[in-house]
Amino acid sequence: MAQISNNGSHHSLSGRRLIILTEGHTEPVTGKTATCVVRYRPEQVVALLDSTQTGKTTQELLGVGGSIPIVGKLEDAPTANTLMLGIAPSGGRVPPPWRAVILAAINRGMDVISGLHEFLSIDPEFSQAAAAKGVQIFDVRKNNERDVAHRLNIREECLRIHTVGQDCSVGKMLVALELTNAMKSQGVTAKFIATGQTGIMVEGDGSPIDCVVSDFVSGAVEKMILAHQHNDVLFIEGQGSISHPRYSGVTLGLLHGCMPHGMILCYEVGRKAVYGMDHLQLKPLAQLVKVYETMANLMVPSRVIGVAMNSRKVSVAEAELERERVRQELGLPVCDVIRHGPEEMLQAVQQMMPVATNA
Amino acid sequence: MAQISNNGSHHSLSGRRLIILTEGHTEPVTGKTATCVVRYRPEQVVALLDSTQTGKTTQELLGVGGSIPIVGKLEDAPTANTLMLGIAPSGGRVPPPWRAVILAAINRGMDVISGLHEFLSIDPEFSQAAAAKGVQIFDVRKNNERDVAHRLNIREECLRIHTVGQDCSVGKMLVALELTNAMKSQGVTAKFIATGQTGIMVEGDGSPIDCVVSDFVSGAVEKMILAHQHNDVLFIEGQGSISHPRYSGVTLGLLHGCMPHGMILCYEVGRKAVYGMDHLQLKPLAQLVKVYETMANLMVPSRVIGVAMNSRKVSVAEAELERERVRQELGLPVCDVIRHGPEEMLQAVQQMMPVATNA
Repeated sequence: MAQISNNGSHHSLSGRRLIILTEGHTEPVTGKTATCVVRYRPEQVVALLDSTQTGKTTQELLGVGGSIPIVGKLEDAPTANTLMLGIAPSGGRVPPPWRAVILAAINRGMDVISGLHEFLSIDPEFSQAAAAKGVQIFDVRKNNERDVAHRLNIREECLRIHTVGQDCSVGKMLVALELTNAMKSQGVTAKFIATGQTGIMVEGDGSPIDCVVSDFVSGAVEKMILAHQHNDVLFIEGQGSISHPRYSGVTLGLLHGCMPHGMILCYEVGRKAVYGMDHLQLKPLAQLVKVYETMANLMVPSRVIGVAMNSRKVSVAEAELERERVRQELGLPVCDVIRHGPEEMLQAVQQMMPVATNA
Repeated sequence: MAQISNNGSHHSLSGRRLIILTEGHTEPVTGKTATCVVRYRPEQVVALLDSTQTGKTTQELLGVGGSIPIVGKLEDAPTANTLMLGIAPSGGRVPPPWRAVILAAINRGMDVISGLHEFLSIDPEFSQAAAAKGVQIFDVRKNNERDVAHRLNIREECLRIHTVGQDCSVGKMLVALELTNAMKSQGVTAKFIATGQTGIMVEGDGSPIDCVVSDFVSGAVEKMILAHQHNDVLFIEGQGSISHPRYSGVTLGLLHGCMPHGMILCYEVGRKAVYGMDHLQLKPLAQLVKVYETMANLMVPSRVIGVAMNSRKVSVAEAELERERVRQELGLPVCDVIRHGPEEMLQAVQQMMPVATNA
């Protein structure tokens, strides 16, 4: 099973009291992990740790979390029992200034949860300190996936919806989570299939596919589909972009592993260049609709059923203009699931549900 | 650098005297690794080990290697100093009956070279035996790639040619090697960029990209391009297929990592279903030309410049008919680089060379 319990531990946050390290990154993009955990698991979050923003709240800086405070020292959140690293930098290495904070947390007897590619649990200094204090280090990306895909025993009556992107960090996980929750509230059995470290932290299971050995990405995804296809609908979190200069292989292995019936194309209004690679322009949405459909249809009949815009950087009026422009251009439903609510996208999904489920 | 010397050792075969284990698989497809090492490094091969084929020669069973014998026991090749595992099974695990042979070789004081995903060097029984006898275990696929692609400082005057496939095991490595050798014989500086375990065994460097963590596949390939782009032309070995149900992510990460100016589409005449997945049909060549061009052009202008057919299973007359049929259908040069020689494909590559190099 492609679950984090594979590694002998389960990273569900229930029962944890988190302080989330976001030093210098308490904002929604580079602090994506922190923002999403605050959004979906606020009851677990005691504070964020960022000495550059002390005294503010997560609501002020991230737009979610209400009065959860930003503190400057571990000592200022004495009830926290777990340090979570709240950023997911490209390349996934530990920012050097964070080492002292991680060590201090371990020495205070706190567990540590990390989604970095650089595993803390095999770092000699961290692992020795953790052993000495009897605390646990959870590397959410650590995995030992070694199964290829088989394309057998897939239950086609389970609707598979996959969020795909124009770029990294545009809202693919958030859209999948919002639609899963909205669908559940209508009495339909739905499951969010987490494929990245933040999604796994929120959902408590999943597979960190960007850290899986490349031959086994599709196999890891297929295992999750098989394990959860008793649901009416699966919302599979996307990764990267099919046109991403760094991560397109991850995106395609995931796309072909989950064989979506429907795709929701996610993008951020106003973004022009590849995130973190300013010298490379993003591809137009219309081109990406064609490319995603071409690639998905190599496996099963599939189409883009809607566009999820992330409009957080523009005004209400600008978002409305953009929404109408994209609707006209692509002839698809378009919404910002946070700003506008998920209803329009939910309808697009419901129209794909098998007759038996709709009846 | 994305070279096997990364791992503290160099797997070049020079100086080695190999016995290659192919038990029950002394044939060109499942015994691909053995066949390619015999084809390109015959001077290093003492014998093949297959108790089901004792007394025959590699020439009889594989069509290459002249009088290299098939033996039934390690003792029958007393001058061999290295055991190489000569198959590359899907999933990459050690066939259980081979464990005793590997241990016997170690206990005879032989080094072991393996291209499997399951690393022999971290197997307690093998590693303890190797330490006791002072021999080395080389896991060619073992790597610690952790660099993303940057898309900077690419020398566009270096022509990048990439072999791509309709399926696994159709000849992508062989075509790249044959064209590299043919180009070198014309006085052009050319380099074979190995991306799989067998290619690395033959070339002595490369990156086993199907065993790289998926986020870093394109980065691993880009590093090899940067390291060798002082050549006039690079022939980059392809992996899998863009339409492969298991490995398409590897294929796309590689394609976007090497950003080919030209692609050569490789296929095996007569193959109808995905290798090892008989329930799944292969995609037509014409569709694959379009899909590969669509995907490659997301990065740089690129086109399929020819088709390399692997016609080993059909007669000369059938191969000629097929060659002409595909030429007509696709309007591209077509040849079997072994049966027909590489000249037609070489011309297609030369027509892409910069004017300065052609002059």
